[in-house]
Amino acid sequence: MVSKEMHELGSKRSVIRELFEYGKQQAAIVGKENVFDFSIGNPTVPAPECVKEAIIELLETKKSDEIHGYTSAQGDFEVRKGIADYMNNTYNSQLKADNFYMTCGAAASLCITLKALTVKSEDEFIIVAPYFPEYLVFVKSAGAKAVVVPADTENFQIQMDLLEKSINSNTKGIIINSPNNPSGVVYSEKTFKDLADLLKKKSEEYQNTLYLISDEPYREIVYDDIQIPYVPAYYDNTIVCYSYSKSISLPGERIGYILVPDCVENAKDVYTAVCGAGRSLGYVCAPSLFQKVVLKCLGKTSDIALYDTNRKLLYNELTKMGYQCVKPDGAFYLFVKALEEDDVNFSENAKKFNLLIVPGGDFGCPGYVRVSYCVDTEMLKRSFDAFKKLRGLYK
Amino acid sequence: MVSKEMHELGSKRSVIRELFEYGKQQAAIVGKENVFDFSIGNPTVPAPECVKEAIIELLETKKSDEIHGYTSAQGDFEVRKGIADYMNNTYNSQLKADNFYMTCGAAASLCITLKALTVKSEDEFIIVAPYFPEYLVFVKSAGAKAVVVPADTENFQIQMDLLEKSINSNTKGIIINSPNNPSGVVYSEKTFKDLADLLKKKSEEYQNTLYLISDEPYREIVYDDIQIPYVPAYYDNTIVCYSYSKSISLPGERIGYILVPDCVENAKDVYTAVCGAGRSLGYVCAPSLFQKVVLKCLGKTSDIALYDTNRKLLYNELTKMGYQCVKPDGAFYLFVKALEEDDVNFSENAKKFNLLIVPGGDFGCPGYVRVSYCVDTEMLKRSFDAFKKLRGLYK
Repeated sequence: MVSKEMHELGSKRSVIRELFEYGKQQAAIVGKENVFDFSIGNPTVPAPECVKEAIIELLETKKSDEIHGYTSAQGDFEVRKGIADYMNNTYNSQLKADNFYMTCGAAASLCITLKALTVKSEDEFIIVAPYFPEYLVFVKSAGAKAVVVPADTENFQIQMDLLEKSINSNTKGIIINSPNNPSGVVYSEKTFKDLADLLKKKSEEYQNTLYLISDEPYREIVYDDIQIPYVPAYYDNTIVCYSYSKSISLPGERIGYILVPDCVENAKDVYTAVCGAGRSLGYVCAPSLFQKVVLKCLGKTSDIALYDTNRKLLYNELTKMGYQCVKPDGAFYLFVKALEEDDVNFSENAKKFNLLIVPGGDFGCPGYVRVSYCVDTEMLKRSFDAFKKLRGLYK
Repeated sequence: MVSKEMHELGSKRSVIRELFEYGKQQAAIVGKENVFDFSIGNPTVPAPECVKEAIIELLETKKSDEIHGYTSAQGDFEVRKGIADYMNNTYNSQLKADNFYMTCGAAASLCITLKALTVKSEDEFIIVAPYFPEYLVFVKSAGAKAVVVPADTENFQIQMDLLEKSINSNTKGIIINSPNNPSGVVYSEKTFKDLADLLKKKSEEYQNTLYLISDEPYREIVYDDIQIPYVPAYYDNTIVCYSYSKSISLPGERIGYILVPDCVENAKDVYTAVCGAGRSLGYVCAPSLFQKVVLKCLGKTSDIALYDTNRKLLYNELTKMGYQCVKPDGAFYLFVKALEEDDVNFSENAKKFNLLIVPGGDFGCPGYVRVSYCVDTEMLKRSFDAFKKLRGLYK
């Protein structure tokens, strides 16, 4: 009577959400202070002050329909122009307002982009493990197939030989995510260069444009002066999907954009298809007040030093205890090797100490767990005893 | 290289948008005061004061993550509870928070509902002319077929005999919109009763649940004490799609909901499929700040008296000049009989007097034009001369 596929999607909550809900129930039993919830990537660092200031200024100085009215479907022109200028100043790019399409956040950016690019049901998009689990949902929803390249568990870069084998005449593109959720790793310059070379080679071999979809919600959340490159500088056919959810802590407001730079082959056609896909999925325009808010907050970020404190504390303590993980350069996740092969069982064992960590299988990388450290630092410190006890189970 | 269907959707702007853009160009040539733009349904009456007050109160009293953080996918519990209570007080219904799924506005509500209900490509949804043109896009996007019931141009109710003929074993449901865009007409109690009887009869005949999708963005924009009913009271299998775009003038903020009442057959499964469809289309949650804003503005509306002033002025003047139209009871549209058969040509002739009115063909009702009167009253008054001149062409 209803769509079986939609019903399934609606009834299977993601493992992350399940753990998050479990944490809330457990808190009611053992006390909030005794639950160490590292399950969800909901930023705890407040939005920068500019957000509040911008909202109040807009409310005080603009007419109701200027801030709450429809914008054009692709977004307010001044907003897109402002973002283009900001990007040009930051990355020395040559972008214009019309390269940007404002969206309701990263999930919308990806769904719209995939729908715009998918031509036939045989089309394939490649996803690199470990990956954000909803990528599978979004690719399927666009009517295409997801093909997974297994994780490089040594460095969490991309295994180029395996990627090469995954590309065939049906491949439409690849989705990458650096800084990465869940590994926290930032792709190296070598990775970007090798990736660009491979995609160019394969595009020629199959006489088929391969799109690089760069999902960049964590672009500004990086540590130790790590530089995040402007990806289209490496590879022309790059479409950037961006969101302000993490960089200025507005995940619930659903505001982001799709960038189709002019260097994309037939960029205007791709942009037009993006506009059509947005329309087709019911995205009339991105939320209007927050379009104007992000314009006033360009270049600002939440206080990343707070995440950095957590990062160092967690990485240092866990490695001291004997846990193995790659030191993250960005985002707010630590991807830790489970102390047994079965990451689901390992995560279950962690729950015995009210420690909520997400099994890696859901990210396409079994044998690992994701520890999301966008949490209160005091909670983080209190959790070390639980991590120690978990470690003790395997000695 | 890109989806042809999405490219087409992106390149064909709706006729309404075309006229709106033309108006802006023409204003630059002849002066803004000399262009009479009745093309678009963008509310000009400001949002009620409670919107600004609610935003400022939330900013002053809540922590950043409480107002800007992710809510659950179906929407904040307190918000849904508040809407349920408000509906129960208003309509004597028995709704609970879990009957509501918060969305990014009416377009999202419809796309999600249609996607949740569509099982196979033969599925059909019936649309009653005159209709909001994007219905065709949304039904197609859900993977189903739209079947149009021709307009009842006498009263703009529903021609039940034609509707009956349109129902077959593939019919999944019917979309209705009362108060109606573009006719301004409100369905009578008889229409609701007859419609319910017909749908019950046909559901039994085909042993197939027929859903009534009630698209209600104009529910509160009614005149002369007209009462809008609670549609599930007439027909159990009703899903209500709502938006705050028009009632409190927040069209750009993208905030609304889907209501699946318990009287819907297998209501829980339908609701679950709605959750899945939202996820599949990339709607992570409805904008969080505005979820909380609408909770604080329940029962409030923009100043409808201003629209009523325009309605009376326009209806009286136009009928005095000899134009024919049904007096609208709701929304902010007047649907006027064109003075020739060809409504496109009629609209083109109107442009000669800088009068922008939308041909009815796009709404599935050729021979008419839509005059959107959510405009400045002074502009409305200045436009009468142009309407007279247009009338003069046909004497």
